[in-house]
Amino acid sequence: MPDSAHAPASGWFEDRAFFFPLRVYYEDTDFSGIVYHANYLRFMERGRSEFLRATEISHQAMLALDEKLAWAVRRMRIDYRKPARVEEALTIRTRVIEVTAARMRLAQEVRRETEILVAAEVEACLITLDGRPRRVPDAVRKILLSYLET
Amino acid sequence: MPDSAHAPASGWFEDRAFFFPLRVYYEDTDFSGIVYHANYLRFMERGRSEFLRATEISHQAMLALDEKLAWAVRRMRIDYRKPARVEEALTIRTRVIEVTAARMRLAQEVRRETEILVAAEVEACLITLDGRPRRVPDAVRKILLSYLET
Amino acid sequence: MPDSAHAPASGWFEDRAFFFPLRVYYEDTDFSGIVYHANYLRFMERGRSEFLRATEISHQAMLALDEKLAWAVRRMRIDYRKPARVEEALTIRTRVIEVTAARMRLAQEVRRETEILVAAEVEACLITLDGRPRRVPDAVRKILLSYLET
Amino acid sequence: MPDSAHAPASGWFEDRAFFFPLRVYYEDTDFSGIVYHANYLRFMERGRSEFLRATEISHQAMLALDEKLAWAVRRMRIDYRKPARVEEALTIRTRVIEVTAARMRLAQEVRRETEILVAAEVEACLITLDGRPRRVPDAVRKILLSYLET
Repeated sequence: MPDSAHAPASGWFEDRAFFFPLRVYYEDTDFSGIVYHANYLRFMERGRSEFLRATEISHQAMLALDEKLAWAVRRMRIDYRKPARVEEALTIRTRVIEVTAARMRLAQEVRRETEILVAAEVEACLITLDGRPRRVPDAVRKILLSYLET
Repeated sequence: MPDSAHAPASGWFEDRAFFFPLRVYYEDTDFSGIVYHANYLRFMERGRSEFLRATEISHQAMLALDEKLAWAVRRMRIDYRKPARVEEALTIRTRVIEVTAARMRLAQEVRRETEILVAAEVEACLITLDGRPRRVPDAVRKILLSYLET
Repeated sequence: MPDSAHAPASGWFEDRAFFFPLRVYYEDTDFSGIVYHANYLRFMERGRSEFLRATEISHQAMLALDEKLAWAVRRMRIDYRKPARVEEALTIRTRVIEVTAARMRLAQEVRRETEILVAAEVEACLITLDGRPRRVPDAVRKILLSYLET
Repeated sequence: MPDSAHAPASGWFEDRAFFFPLRVYYEDTDFSGIVYHANYLRFMERGRSEFLRATEISHQAMLALDEKLAWAVRRMRIDYRKPARVEEALTIRTRVIEVTAARMRLAQEVRRETEILVAAEVEACLITLDGRPRRVPDAVRKILLSYLET
């Protein structure tokens, strides 16, 4: 039954930038009537996860390595410009701006139509499930580099 | 730009049952490796919200009434049968099983393919933003009744 | 530095019932102005976790067993009676109502002063981190039974 | 019944810095075994809320003004240094580093004992429940300034 129309949204590329659409639900808002500030980080993480899935370096792929690995955020800068409200359709734009052996750095935006509501820069590295840092495997790094902004 | 392929998933009807697809992200899991039990309630709320949007009695429509109204859950029974894991694609199935002047009662399931992971019964009523109960407006009740399981 | 006044709240027993205090924050509310219904499950889980810590069968103790175990909720019935709002002080009351080799069953309430806002019954069992069910170890069962309501 | 031992933790001052203790629960972790990165923002918001309550400019006080106001985060910089795990006791340290008519700027840390796990800088301003920015009322600004780091 689940053909593509019936599957969860998975996003799309425009040049090297990845776009992921989502809708704002009850759970995302707070009593002030707008989206709770920490929840934009959940939105951006969904954008990163779908970007990684689209490039075939999904979380499950990282858990299937000899040593299970997971991405951990190391640093973020977030600029909240305008609020989003319940039921609005948003888009997360994700671009790779740096890849090294130790980490990837991404620029992400939360947009409503073409308007930028939140802009962020996110640095992530790979850790074992015991919390120890690991190099970005060469194969993963090569894939990420192919999406690097020029 | 956002044509239907680029919009958030919005779900579909099969007879009178409504289906909504979603994917499990990092944020939904806990240290035991599976989806945190309270997060299935967020999933089911997304299913209810999309069902209501599909029937044109969205949250924003309720906030646009002379007196702003919002749905509040009054009672739930939840049966957790099998766990879901990160990156899995799930579907929320929502059916109306009772509608009165005071409330609606829904049966909801969280499914992975055709397997039922979580089954729930949810009773919700309408409240003002001050928390006072209100009758389900006739127009809203009529719409809900047209989806009642027979 | 952290003496008892400076530690997180840890709760207390009254006879065999366990009480845990918490405050409602921004993150717990939604645009309707009250606590989002799924978040009471997070509150009740904190009450269960502190009850288990108080009885010395903490989550970390279960992760230190030969085979790592974690509690998984199997069934809940929840009755939402009155809403809570931002900054209110609430108390979670937890009582053991059944313990078998396969599961524990608890009655929980979310209270504001002596008023019951939410009442629930929760059934939980133990699983491995791979999701397979395990018997409640005898030592754990014995401790839980000593708190059984009579 | 709720005497101070039975109330939620409310934090304390050391000079002008405010400290708030909390414990890590199931809900805060993700499948990688550690606290989910967005949840440290919830922790820091609890620290800000308790700081504001301690200074008697609570959220409820802002909602009681002629025009209801709520704090909105405008900008954050976050440095994730070390992960926290389930059941650990953490402390949030909050200091005021700038107050103007338009905003307050805070430095916040998430600590385990004396170790800094996460360091952040947070800028927040006041908005109406319709999302329009408002000046920080003189009385509020005066209070905040009395906690300014020197």
